[in-house]
Amino acid sequence: MDRVEALRQKAFEMNRFDGFLVTSEVNLYYFAGCPGLTSMLIPEKGKGIIFAYNVNYEQAKAMTKGFEVQMLERGQNLMECVAKQVKACKIKKLAFDTLDFESHNQLAKKLRGQARLSPKGGLVGELRRVKDQKELQLMRKAAELTNIGMKMAYETIKPGMKEYQVAAEIEYSMRRKGSWGVAFETIIASGARSAFPHGGGGTLLGGGCTDREIRNGELVVVDMGAIYQHYRSDITRTIVAGKSLQAKQKKLFEIVKASHDKALGEIRPGTKTKDVDSAARKVIADAGYGEYFVHGLGHGVGLEIHEGPTLSSLSKDKLTIGNVVTDEPGIYLVGYGGIRIEDTVLVQKGKAECLTSAPYSLEADS
Amino acid sequence: MDRVEALRQKAFEMNRFDGFLVTSEVNLYYFAGCPGLTSMLIPEKGKGIIFAYNVNYEQAKAMTKGFEVQMLERGQNLMECVAKQVKACKIKKLAFDTLDFESHNQLAKKLRGQARLSPKGGLVGELRRVKDQKELQLMRKAAELTNIGMKMAYETIKPGMKEYQVAAEIEYSMRRKGSWGVAFETIIASGARSAFPHGGGGTLLGGGCTDREIRNGELVVVDMGAIYQHYRSDITRTIVAGKSLQAKQKKLFEIVKASHDKALGEIRPGTKTKDVDSAARKVIADAGYGEYFVHGLGHGVGLEIHEGPTLSSLSKDKLTIGNVVTDEPGIYLVGYGGIRIEDTVLVQKGKAECLTSAPYSLEADS
Repeated sequence: MDRVEALRQKAFEMNRFDGFLVTSEVNLYYFAGCPGLTSMLIPEKGKGIIFAYNVNYEQAKAMTKGFEVQMLERGQNLMECVAKQVKACKIKKLAFDTLDFESHNQLAKKLRGQARLSPKGGLVGELRRVKDQKELQLMRKAAELTNIGMKMAYETIKPGMKEYQVAAEIEYSMRRKGSWGVAFETIIASGARSAFPHGGGGTLLGGGCTDREIRNGELVVVDMGAIYQHYRSDITRTIVAGKSLQAKQKKLFEIVKASHDKALGEIRPGTKTKDVDSAARKVIADAGYGEYFVHGLGHGVGLEIHEGPTLSSLSKDKLTIGNVVTDEPGIYLVGYGGIRIEDTVLVQKGKAECLTSAPYSLEADS
Repeated sequence: MDRVEALRQKAFEMNRFDGFLVTSEVNLYYFAGCPGLTSMLIPEKGKGIIFAYNVNYEQAKAMTKGFEVQMLERGQNLMECVAKQVKACKIKKLAFDTLDFESHNQLAKKLRGQARLSPKGGLVGELRRVKDQKELQLMRKAAELTNIGMKMAYETIKPGMKEYQVAAEIEYSMRRKGSWGVAFETIIASGARSAFPHGGGGTLLGGGCTDREIRNGELVVVDMGAIYQHYRSDITRTIVAGKSLQAKQKKLFEIVKASHDKALGEIRPGTKTKDVDSAARKVIADAGYGEYFVHGLGHGVGLEIHEGPTLSSLSKDKLTIGNVVTDEPGIYLVGYGGIRIEDTVLVQKGKAECLTSAPYSLEADS
């Protein structure tokens, strides 16, 4: 309920709204501590109202506290129910986190001008990016599980393995120790594929690894993470299969590592994220590879694998205590291969803390 | 490219649009065969234009054929680039699959009235729900992998195992045989938790299984699936841990099985999905448990785990050859437990074909 009160303060006291509609599943979990909800209406005073379809209604009643839970029948129009409650609560200025174009139109129509609608997803994002102690405990656990997975990567990668087989071993090692799943599609990008930062995969679909066989001396980018009680973690190491490291691989690795370390030193409360990005970028540019670092330095992590703050040259974010962000510079040479090094990092008083850990080594164990 | 031509026929010839904007990642994959794209504009004539951010640009060029690929720089406004191309292509009536409220407003503003915007995601959904031979080949492979996972469930479930440990074994068995990941969060819902159809999990977040220890004689709902080359599969069996089946469990199981079989017999081209749902529902209602079958009978499966057509009392869909749908009736008694049986089924000439298969048995192997 502290989180609902924090939203009230942000949205109602600071921004003069008198109602907030939450529709994103992740935001709903953040406020209610229960998955499978459809929507939540927070009025200025009194209990927040949760809307859940009948398939999830019993669960919502069992798992949430301090809310009123309303059942939606199959086929019942959600926006009609929301509009009814907005009117009953006499809300005049309703903020919402996210609505697609059609739902927005439906709601506006049902409200018949009785409340003004404003997209304010950013307010929830601002709350979520500052992790509380309970969240940090779960994120530390997710990071521990992630470390187990990366240890397995170093033990498993060898010439002749297929990318998906490496992923199978990594994921199994985390899952059997209690991971709830993968924080995102595990990326095992070998050989020339390592030059694609997302390893051929997208954010929604499988494809981070293929049935390509890893060959001796190839770069393998391993980017993965565990989930614990809905909280995620994120780590990348680049590993050479077999025992024949090339001088160029070592050189690129040292540049990326120096960039990673430089950024880590800059991650502290009050710093602009674009300054951290630019410090990391300068190391790579000075070494002559600036144009091959084709993405931003990092992103926030929490209930989602990508959330605020963003660490990039275009970001206006500033770091604060309790942010958890990735530090992940890389160099990608199309046709040759790529190297990325990443940790999930907690912003705190003084020196930032890497939640993830694994040796910074190009060499596999086996 | 056949898929782009099919969309052109549906949207341009039948519905009189002269441009289609695709923004959903899954739809983009469907048309372009490449993940990680940001958007695609299909004009009436000439090549479709793909927009990809620089992090995915090289991959998009390497993996797509017959499209023009435009690079978006980080920070560049997508809707501004889209609007520019809409104007260059002289599009006047632009359909789109999905846009959030803010992107829609941005695009409308940049277009300055030069093109009218209409949400038509349904048109792509109609194409996607009829699987071609290439897709069916991948779905059969996904189903085979899923069957391996369910076999492992029967071998693994025993008193004393924790839910997530069962999931670990299932997922590992599929992954090492080539599954690209899980089609959705594996649900292992034991004991009283089996009465929650989604096992406590949502659609986006982990939580389908917990660290709850499975006890002798408890019902365990196992609902899971594999992915192969982006295509998904879906199966559910309910298994009793240990060797002490109760008469009530057997009775409920027989009712759900009869409902599943009844529906399977009704799944054929030309049938209304609501009639299939109602045939399945009648079996359960006649046995006195109608109010405990708290969800629709099934859903389409393909690139997404939930897509068209929908099998429910409220659906207006009709089955056609090439649809792949789930048949998944269940009975959920809060405080006692639940039973669900599900297969992924191909609609074809004559009798429908179950792509998934596993024994219909309440008893675990061990």
